[in-house]
Amino acid sequence: MVKFMTTIPAQLNESKDKLVILDQTLLPEEEKFLELTTPEEIWEAIKKLRVRGAPAIGVAAAYGLYVASLAINTDSAETFRSEVQNIKDYLASSRPTAVNLFWALDRMMARLESETGTVAELKAVLLDESEAIFTEDQEMGRAIGEFGLSLLKPGMGLLTHCNAGGLATSGYGTALAPMYLGHEKDYNFKVYADETRPLLQGSRLTAYELHKAGIDVTVICDNMAAMVMKEGKIDAVLVGCDRIAANGDTANKIGTSGVAILAKEYGIPMYILGPTSTIDMETPTGAEIEIELRDSDEIGMGFGKRTAPEAVKTYNPAFDVTDAKYIDAIITEKGILRAPYTESIRKAMED
Amino acid sequence: MVKFMTTIPAQLNESKDKLVILDQTLLPEEEKFLELTTPEEIWEAIKKLRVRGAPAIGVAAAYGLYVASLAINTDSAETFRSEVQNIKDYLASSRPTAVNLFWALDRMMARLESETGTVAELKAVLLDESEAIFTEDQEMGRAIGEFGLSLLKPGMGLLTHCNAGGLATSGYGTALAPMYLGHEKDYNFKVYADETRPLLQGSRLTAYELHKAGIDVTVICDNMAAMVMKEGKIDAVLVGCDRIAANGDTANKIGTSGVAILAKEYGIPMYILGPTSTIDMETPTGAEIEIELRDSDEIGMGFGKRTAPEAVKTYNPAFDVTDAKYIDAIITEKGILRAPYTESIRKAMED
Repeated sequence: MVKFMTTIPAQLNESKDKLVILDQTLLPEEEKFLELTTPEEIWEAIKKLRVRGAPAIGVAAAYGLYVASLAINTDSAETFRSEVQNIKDYLASSRPTAVNLFWALDRMMARLESETGTVAELKAVLLDESEAIFTEDQEMGRAIGEFGLSLLKPGMGLLTHCNAGGLATSGYGTALAPMYLGHEKDYNFKVYADETRPLLQGSRLTAYELHKAGIDVTVICDNMAAMVMKEGKIDAVLVGCDRIAANGDTANKIGTSGVAILAKEYGIPMYILGPTSTIDMETPTGAEIEIELRDSDEIGMGFGKRTAPEAVKTYNPAFDVTDAKYIDAIITEKGILRAPYTESIRKAMED
Repeated sequence: MVKFMTTIPAQLNESKDKLVILDQTLLPEEEKFLELTTPEEIWEAIKKLRVRGAPAIGVAAAYGLYVASLAINTDSAETFRSEVQNIKDYLASSRPTAVNLFWALDRMMARLESETGTVAELKAVLLDESEAIFTEDQEMGRAIGEFGLSLLKPGMGLLTHCNAGGLATSGYGTALAPMYLGHEKDYNFKVYADETRPLLQGSRLTAYELHKAGIDVTVICDNMAAMVMKEGKIDAVLVGCDRIAANGDTANKIGTSGVAILAKEYGIPMYILGPTSTIDMETPTGAEIEIELRDSDEIGMGFGKRTAPEAVKTYNPAFDVTDAKYIDAIITEKGILRAPYTESIRKAMED
């Protein structure tokens, strides 16, 4: 049993008939767990970002499909399958661009189609598959965490950006996984969390979950990263990733590339942590990654208060691309990849 | 006459009997000018940061002392001098750490002591001296602006951090002065303003005043600076300074040193703009500059809303030091200083 109390964003209750979601839209002001059973409740929770982060959405959708299927009152396996299909289609409409949502739901349906039995047995199949999705994600996080931890030493100062933590996954996260595993071993890391404007995932989520787990965490504004590095407070930078190109260029939350350049200047290793499913061999380099531009009000009115004149333009890219040359290692569940990345990535993907 | 409508933070009204302050605490939501005459009103405006920025505080205090002196109803020059001294002591208590406040008030008193005449004549002396302080500050900004402009070309993209603009001075500012002067000559700069967490001087003040002057300005979050540089949007970085050490190391708003490192990485010139009065020959290097640490709530609750868990630590340095090696030029009212700064600064200070 792990000794930290990590916050799992989507899990089953003890009697395995409800989906329990930590409502992340209320963080950090309020910590509220929702118990969901109907397709409508589950759809709403995904749609409104009460659960967010690709792996966590997949887990929530899988558990959600199972939980919602419990209310299907029929003895006909055929009717059951058809009703589950309807719920699946409905849940899939909650966030039309979330690849992990479709992946998890499709996997649930494929498993259901591959099995025969009574309605009760089919419900047990859905439970089994959703628990497998959850467990595999936890194992992946743990594997990434262990590889990451092998590069760290007790007492180190660590900087992270955005939230690639338990709240986005099924407990361990990616960039935060080595911190949790190190905490189990009394590594006493000092973690600095960039607040991560404009949406403040760092101060709202990363700080929340690390503090909750008992890890020493300090929030800084994004523009303070250079100073804490210069002061010798940072021994390694650990961040997640949204997409890794075949040459190692990595798209992640806006601001990551700047942190990487500063880390290089101060001789601090920059680590990208993520599952190999984030590697996109169809994308040769970072130049081919399209960057989403987001709404102006996230910058000019991000906290319900006007912080820039309404008439003034903003530029609000959601992600940036960190060139492979600034990355010291890409840490995956399969191992630690090093430059030259074109080779190490190809090899990892072939394995 | 300049063709732009810059926003002057502290000035006299047309009949020269009131101090007109743009209430900067209401920006960018509301643009409200206050007409002040009593010592209490002027004290409150300085105390509550309705006027801020070292030069602007000096100008406001000087004009304020003059305006308040108009209400002294006596024919005795001696009584008048004594009353003015009382007002001066009172105004000086508004912000006990604002060096420019004392400097401006002391200069007003020194001038008053050096003159003789009737009460009406002494009031005219105070008007004259306060206008001299205002005009000299404008001329200094203009000189810095002209030297700065000589390094720029029409159409350039410029990045600035924090607010070293007209709102902190008597109209031109320091880092923004070349932008205003270039605007007079149709240079069509594209300015990017870092919002500058935690207090958002960039999005609240810099964006406000540049937009007001008709200059093309775009607000970005601090962590987007690397991306706009990488995209080729930035041809030069222009920032102000709070203190320059004898070797060129420069203390300025937190985040400046990070911007400087990014600029170096992308081959973009980094310019520091400020009057030679900012150079402190008693400070050999940046290592000797003490950095003010500010309140946690500026980060965790900066917008009247909790953005980081209350129990979580923050680290909130107000300034950082940019090493001289990242600075391409220090632009002063006396000219453009280049590395090696120990020599160029010494020479400028000897002149």
